[in-house]
Amino acid sequence: MAELMENEVFMAFTTYAAIVILKMLLMGPMTSYYRITTGSFSNEEDVVLKHSEDKKKLLKIHPNVERVRRCHQNDLENIIPFVVVGLLYALTGPELSVALLHYRLFAGARIFHTIAYVGALPQPSRALAWIVGMLVTFSMAYRVLSTVLLL
Amino acid sequence: MAELMENEVFMAFTTYAAIVILKMLLMGPMTSYYRITTGSFSNEEDVVLKHSEDKKKLLKIHPNVERVRRCHQNDLENIIPFVVVGLLYALTGPELSVALLHYRLFAGARIFHTIAYVGALPQPSRALAWIVGMLVTFSMAYRVLSTVLLL
Amino acid sequence: MAELMENEVFMAFTTYAAIVILKMLLMGPMTSYYRITTGSFSNEEDVVLKHSEDKKKLLKIHPNVERVRRCHQNDLENIIPFVVVGLLYALTGPELSVALLHYRLFAGARIFHTIAYVGALPQPSRALAWIVGMLVTFSMAYRVLSTVLLL
Repeated sequence: MAELMENEVFMAFTTYAAIVILKMLLMGPMTSYYRITTGSFSNEEDVVLKHSEDKKKLLKIHPNVERVRRCHQNDLENIIPFVVVGLLYALTGPELSVALLHYRLFAGARIFHTIAYVGALPQPSRALAWIVGMLVTFSMAYRVLSTVLLL
Repeated sequence: MAELMENEVFMAFTTYAAIVILKMLLMGPMTSYYRITTGSFSNEEDVVLKHSEDKKKLLKIHPNVERVRRCHQNDLENIIPFVVVGLLYALTGPELSVALLHYRLFAGARIFHTIAYVGALPQPSRALAWIVGMLVTFSMAYRVLSTVLLL
Repeated sequence: MAELMENEVFMAFTTYAAIVILKMLLMGPMTSYYRITTGSFSNEEDVVLKHSEDKKKLLKIHPNVERVRRCHQNDLENIIPFVVVGLLYALTGPELSVALLHYRLFAGARIFHTIAYVGALPQPSRALAWIVGMLVTFSMAYRVLSTVLLL
């Protein structure tokens, strides 16, 4: 067990996996923040008003909440594949410098993706960040499948 | 390989990871159950009626189906980060008692979260369950990053 | 580290995990393709037209885009649990032939699931593919919990 955590590539994977997963987790509280500040909830029990008419007014959809939720969804669709493929990639024993390049590029691209999405920056900023993240995962998957293929 | 599964912390991780993932998987059949009992489908091919007018009536959204789907989505957003961070945490070699405390708290909090969400229990029951789960994951991530940081 | 990747069951897991994760990742570009060909976007910054009235016309929902997104969501809900449980299952040291049977069945079922979903094939084709994938994951989870239970 200790062996894995003494391997530098695995340590680099651990660091960047924890960072991008934490970034993704923080989208949850960010959604709550936008829900509360814009007064837009999905569940009746989340609205603390007494009158049922006032309640229904707060069960609405707000564009800013939906924007954060789409960003969160995009994280689920991209960060989790990165973590799975990145773990298998680390176990194939790549060069530390090459592995670090992959992990740093991905982490940077996804942090910028969140800024571009939540801040509604003009395209193609968000599209490019998404493509860079995806190319990193494809590159690692290629190395994994070309090293260890047992069908 | 056998070494990992002889380590008690890793065995505890394996047990609780399997439990919370199974809990999450069961939200799928639960959604199907609510879709069938309330007659609310998303796809035309899922409706077996012959008349196209009757079909369209069943392509609707039902609040109970949406509630289960939001609960499932919240599981994806919280349980998968727990599994990833929990695996890395187990590999840092924590005390068995401390690791068990993290894993048990998380599993209990998420099972209660589902009961609170699907049963529409009054707040802050669901919010507290969500926060406990998130704090457990943050605590494990802190241990991971303070033990193994290679940027 | 090299030990894990010399184990045949783990190599088989690595191969099939990479394949199903790549299949899931490709739903992203497929969504983009349907968004562009049907002209249905979610974000104002994604529409390159100059007149704000023309812009709003492209901020719409198209049934084909929603179909691909539901398929992607179903992948997230099923493929990620498979990868997590499949990893733990590989570490319990099953027979190679039994493990391969699980992994192949799952990969085949999920690829067929995507064809059935995106192609809107008549039911119960999609439902059966979904059930087969779920049964494979349950079977592996049963083996994991009956081998390594530390509560």
